[in-house]
Amino acid sequence: MRDIVEIGMGKTAQRGYHLDDIAIVPTRRTRDVDDVSTNWQLDAYKFGIPCVAHPSDAIMSPASAVALGRLGGLGVLNVEGLWTRYEDPRKQLEALAEAGDEENLTARLQQLYAAEPIKPELIAERVREMRALAGDGNVTVAVRVSPQHTLALAPVILDSGVDLLVIQGTIVSAEHVSTVDEPLNLKEFIADLDLPVIVGGCTNYQTALHLMRTGAAGVIVGIGADHLTTSDAVLGIRVPMASAIADAAAARRDYLDETGGRYVHLIADGDVHTSGDIAKALGCGADAVMLGAPLSLAEGMPGNGLWWHPSASHPKLPRGSIGLTAEPLGSLEQLLYGPATDPDGLLNLFGGLKRAMAKCGYRDLKEFQKVGLLLDN
Amino acid sequence: MRDIVEIGMGKTAQRGYHLDDIAIVPTRRTRDVDDVSTNWQLDAYKFGIPCVAHPSDAIMSPASAVALGRLGGLGVLNVEGLWTRYEDPRKQLEALAEAGDEENLTARLQQLYAAEPIKPELIAERVREMRALAGDGNVTVAVRVSPQHTLALAPVILDSGVDLLVIQGTIVSAEHVSTVDEPLNLKEFIADLDLPVIVGGCTNYQTALHLMRTGAAGVIVGIGADHLTTSDAVLGIRVPMASAIADAAAARRDYLDETGGRYVHLIADGDVHTSGDIAKALGCGADAVMLGAPLSLAEGMPGNGLWWHPSASHPKLPRGSIGLTAEPLGSLEQLLYGPATDPDGLLNLFGGLKRAMAKCGYRDLKEFQKVGLLLDN
Amino acid sequence: MRDIVEIGMGKTAQRGYHLDDIAIVPTRRTRDVDDVSTNWQLDAYKFGIPCVAHPSDAIMSPASAVALGRLGGLGVLNVEGLWTRYEDPRKQLEALAEAGDEENLTARLQQLYAAEPIKPELIAERVREMRALAGDGNVTVAVRVSPQHTLALAPVILDSGVDLLVIQGTIVSAEHVSTVDEPLNLKEFIADLDLPVIVGGCTNYQTALHLMRTGAAGVIVGIGADHLTTSDAVLGIRVPMASAIADAAAARRDYLDETGGRYVHLIADGDVHTSGDIAKALGCGADAVMLGAPLSLAEGMPGNGLWWHPSASHPKLPRGSIGLTAEPLGSLEQLLYGPATDPDGLLNLFGGLKRAMAKCGYRDLKEFQKVGLLLDN
Amino acid sequence: MRDIVEIGMGKTAQRGYHLDDIAIVPTRRTRDVDDVSTNWQLDAYKFGIPCVAHPSDAIMSPASAVALGRLGGLGVLNVEGLWTRYEDPRKQLEALAEAGDEENLTARLQQLYAAEPIKPELIAERVREMRALAGDGNVTVAVRVSPQHTLALAPVILDSGVDLLVIQGTIVSAEHVSTVDEPLNLKEFIADLDLPVIVGGCTNYQTALHLMRTGAAGVIVGIGADHLTTSDAVLGIRVPMASAIADAAAARRDYLDETGGRYVHLIADGDVHTSGDIAKALGCGADAVMLGAPLSLAEGMPGNGLWWHPSASHPKLPRGSIGLTAEPLGSLEQLLYGPATDPDGLLNLFGGLKRAMAKCGYRDLKEFQKVGLLLDN
Repeated sequence: MRDIVEIGMGKTAQRGYHLDDIAIVPTRRTRDVDDVSTNWQLDAYKFGIPCVAHPSDAIMSPASAVALGRLGGLGVLNVEGLWTRYEDPRKQLEALAEAGDEENLTARLQQLYAAEPIKPELIAERVREMRALAGDGNVTVAVRVSPQHTLALAPVILDSGVDLLVIQGTIVSAEHVSTVDEPLNLKEFIADLDLPVIVGGCTNYQTALHLMRTGAAGVIVGIGADHLTTSDAVLGIRVPMASAIADAAAARRDYLDETGGRYVHLIADGDVHTSGDIAKALGCGADAVMLGAPLSLAEGMPGNGLWWHPSASHPKLPRGSIGLTAEPLGSLEQLLYGPATDPDGLLNLFGGLKRAMAKCGYRDLKEFQKVGLLLDN
Repeated sequence: MRDIVEIGMGKTAQRGYHLDDIAIVPTRRTRDVDDVSTNWQLDAYKFGIPCVAHPSDAIMSPASAVALGRLGGLGVLNVEGLWTRYEDPRKQLEALAEAGDEENLTARLQQLYAAEPIKPELIAERVREMRALAGDGNVTVAVRVSPQHTLALAPVILDSGVDLLVIQGTIVSAEHVSTVDEPLNLKEFIADLDLPVIVGGCTNYQTALHLMRTGAAGVIVGIGADHLTTSDAVLGIRVPMASAIADAAAARRDYLDETGGRYVHLIADGDVHTSGDIAKALGCGADAVMLGAPLSLAEGMPGNGLWWHPSASHPKLPRGSIGLTAEPLGSLEQLLYGPATDPDGLLNLFGGLKRAMAKCGYRDLKEFQKVGLLLDN
Repeated sequence: MRDIVEIGMGKTAQRGYHLDDIAIVPTRRTRDVDDVSTNWQLDAYKFGIPCVAHPSDAIMSPASAVALGRLGGLGVLNVEGLWTRYEDPRKQLEALAEAGDEENLTARLQQLYAAEPIKPELIAERVREMRALAGDGNVTVAVRVSPQHTLALAPVILDSGVDLLVIQGTIVSAEHVSTVDEPLNLKEFIADLDLPVIVGGCTNYQTALHLMRTGAAGVIVGIGADHLTTSDAVLGIRVPMASAIADAAAARRDYLDETGGRYVHLIADGDVHTSGDIAKALGCGADAVMLGAPLSLAEGMPGNGLWWHPSASHPKLPRGSIGLTAEPLGSLEQLLYGPATDPDGLLNLFGGLKRAMAKCGYRDLKEFQKVGLLLDN
Repeated sequence: MRDIVEIGMGKTAQRGYHLDDIAIVPTRRTRDVDDVSTNWQLDAYKFGIPCVAHPSDAIMSPASAVALGRLGGLGVLNVEGLWTRYEDPRKQLEALAEAGDEENLTARLQQLYAAEPIKPELIAERVREMRALAGDGNVTVAVRVSPQHTLALAPVILDSGVDLLVIQGTIVSAEHVSTVDEPLNLKEFIADLDLPVIVGGCTNYQTALHLMRTGAAGVIVGIGADHLTTSDAVLGIRVPMASAIADAAAARRDYLDETGGRYVHLIADGDVHTSGDIAKALGCGADAVMLGAPLSLAEGMPGNGLWWHPSASHPKLPRGSIGLTAEPLGSLEQLLYGPATDPDGLLNLFGGLKRAMAKCGYRDLKEFQKVGLLLDN
């Protein structure tokens, strides 16, 4: 039974479970690893691995987004990031990396984003760049926009000819109330579009269901928590991902029933650092994972080894630090497919997933959502 | 259901939950941050933020109390502290700060308070100072007295013309038993006063209800636990604040019913360090928070960066250390209203609260007490 | 309800609670600290504080045992320790303290105990010394013997004229089975004695009840766990003291009923480091606490700042380290009665207890056993 | 009742308990340590202690396997390790130990195993060596083979004349599915053999029962987790050993019933570091423990103080580090039988077990499986 705990007289709280609290459970059958598939398909787009990049400038440039696409994942460029504020942000990124561990790196990051406005013409330019780099490879081109800027930036984004749109804020609801601005009506907006939309993050059943009803092809679950996140200290909000994913999966089932079969994909965004975490997130019901900090460990990332979440550059209330993650561990390909030369689950992310599926006897991702779970005492 | 656990045969304990154990939960609605209000009103006094200062000499001088008042909070000067023992305690405070991290700082603190008695004439003088500094700004003048000294010091305090009286000890009950002294009868004392009284701290439903029945306008919940507190080691007492606040909120509901509508405010005093903690305390049912150590991080505080709880200077049984909290983070205004240049929830305390309320879709503080909570496994 | 957990199919474990897991809970009444008494009486012997010394050579010499007695507690000398192996063990103790933090201090300790046998004539000598030191002060003279050596050493001990005998091993049962030696029949042995006996340690209801039925005046609960103990690593045994004390208190109630009123005292031995721990142990139902490591912090202890549990010198299987606890904090009197100049609960142990009792509104030790408890999530 | 927790709507997880979560509980009876036996018998083979060596090259050479046998345990040589890849691997092992703490020791380990194939003729040679070393002492000769190589290597292994065969992989099931290779049918394979087989690891009731039905004499429970293991990070798999052993013990009971009395032994492989852990594993229902890292602390082990689990050399996805455990603590005999000169439970492993059994009043291993357990809050 789900635990509803009375924390004080008449005040209840629902227990939440983190990915770290759980593990997947092998069963009586094992399977050959070569018989296991990690293929994922969202709308018409096919991917070799269930991997969406977090749209942070630390890891997503036009070049790295396409590189990830070539390797079977989905790259996502932030149209509100440095690449649409600066003609060529590489020297800013280098200067940031050189500043390294200096004390007020957050202030420096805030300044970098505040110094230049978003330039719509650069959005079109960046999408063109990605198309050119993609060539005729099987690469899906996607960008991220925040709900606040969606109405203003949508025309130029859609004109630029992206394949897929990600509308993402820390916490997105289908019902934003404002007496100040005209809020975005997600349902009307998405209905009018020809291309598939991924929307989120959300953290519970109710919001997930409402976001599914907007017509989105995918819903992001979680707020992208990583080892530098401080949402709990700043906002009092934290998201136990195992529970959040499972609750959103329940919303998916109910939405399948109410629509007679429309399947909305769940992309888990938060607390996924290792191949083991990927296995756990999928085991809770996710269709794919959004990877941020883990990809910053690849050689040649735009952040040069630095990682920061988009919310770390908020001008008045940053909810995450910026910092070096570690020395690069290997190429992006090695990160995704191995071989691993260290045993920490940071290399061979999807080879690790494949082996976990094999050890539990599952063949494909959808089937693997049924894997048994255990909970540490 | 509330957990009553049998820890041994026939011996039970009730589970208690700390603010760190819980988080607030966004729901299906979000709201524009500019539509959110943090206004708070206690009796006739209005505040822009639900913030009461802890009456420690480390943060409250006549000047800083008024400064907090101008910024929308409630400053409280301790009439049993250094400002009523010394004509001008600033050089003692500076010497203490210079002693810095020296080993027996507690002994030094004990000596500082023991060396001079409380001087009633200085009480009147300090209140006059605060009035003068306040000018005709919207500043509420308040002082703190302990239950033990209330009868002796009340005449001079009331004559001095304060707006609001805080009667505060570590643990205050409405029923103090003594064969040695004539104990303070809180009910009779408060009934005879013309000005609103805040009384506490208390830690459970029963005591909170009894303190409400004294006629107090506000009840303090908690014992002011901070990162230097040692009440658990010294007394075996610790207060899980989430449970304590929720239990006191239940007492408030029952007292509303028994009085046909008298609303007593709850001021949460303990384990509130960040904007996230403020959001959690209010989410559990508090109307305001009492801030001690967090305010010691502002520039120009009387303790010059040192923090100590009033109980840290107890002559025979100190229940808390004295120590440097950290380098000053910014002005008092920046602490309360930002902008934050670090992401740890220590700056922009009430901007962070506002954004938390917005992300959860609430408009004002009273409404926000209904926010959903989750509990970590 | 007491938690019986199925840890695997058909295999259950009972949840146990440590003193650290719990706290005492103030109620609606507070009391003047001067109205609180910590008097304790065991059989005909009266004590100002419920404090029994652990019979470790690190803290108990004839001199320190009597010193504790003069201060209101009960000193206990180990008749199987250094004082009955060496004519004057002070130079051995000094050499040990000088060896300080050297690596193989355990081996050195083992050797010190193995090098000389127990000498019965020294037992009589040490008791005479204690009597002489005690003079006509109100000091109770007590020694400790292990169950294994009780039959052999009893004659000389009883002849020497002690007031009180402590029969103590790590785990003592009323039913020791051996095909090798004639085991001690505690029931017969104690029935034949004229003086009161304290026996233990035990860890559960059943054993506590059986030990009460031997006719003992007091039963020791726990195995003397301190910060250097390794019983869990060596034996797989650990004792959650809150549960163990409460279970033994239930045995006491049942034994009171079955005997029509014979009250056996419980002495809590383990995890009691601070005044807060003392309050918790008594709140769980103990009548007194056995203090070991905490007393090693007093100036002039025989171990010169070193602490070791008697089981740390076991020749083949030591279950605890030997090590420096900390710099001496003050005299034995200051340790027991304050004033405290540090806030960690290590000084003013029984002043802290008294204040805890006052804050919870209790007058004496027996009444205080009813104090409410809370359990951390 | 076993906890099945709903971690999200419609998604459950079963709580699992680690050996660290539990402790054994003394009861009302104690026993003389000299009356306690640790004898263990598997099929026709008799052992003085319930100790099986983990087949890692770090601890098992032909010489050390026989040395353990002479001391009463069961040595197991890995036929897929360095001793069957290299004519004389001692200089490779020394070079590895000299490389010590260098950074990419994992890569070096991977290379060492990849550089040479398994040579069947060396298998026969190693078994001959062990026989010669064993002489006519009471030593059982055993080797380990993985399920993947069992069919290929079985002929040479069986011809070589081992007493006992260990078929061991990280996770072994009785039902391995492959479209690529002909999988091993364990049931048919074991039925055809004349010698007893130990098979595993497994982690739950169902797999344990299926493995028992293959006709194995012993089933390994667990995946050999030690302090360097990273299965959780890499695969999302971790095994709470207390629960896994208890579940397998339930499978044993059911299998006893379905076969009318065939008793299959459980060998606990994981999280057993100290004598206390051994006691806990047996208390949960194991008949013996598999020791890896703890034996690497003996003087003269082939790894020269290094420890690695066989899975740490996996060419693409290592699931464990290689590293120095600590300075050698003493001879293998002292490790197993003491005397201990440190109190950490790493020396006198089976003397510690014996004393634990005595303190709880049990005579032999089978009886000790009924010992009471407690669970920490």
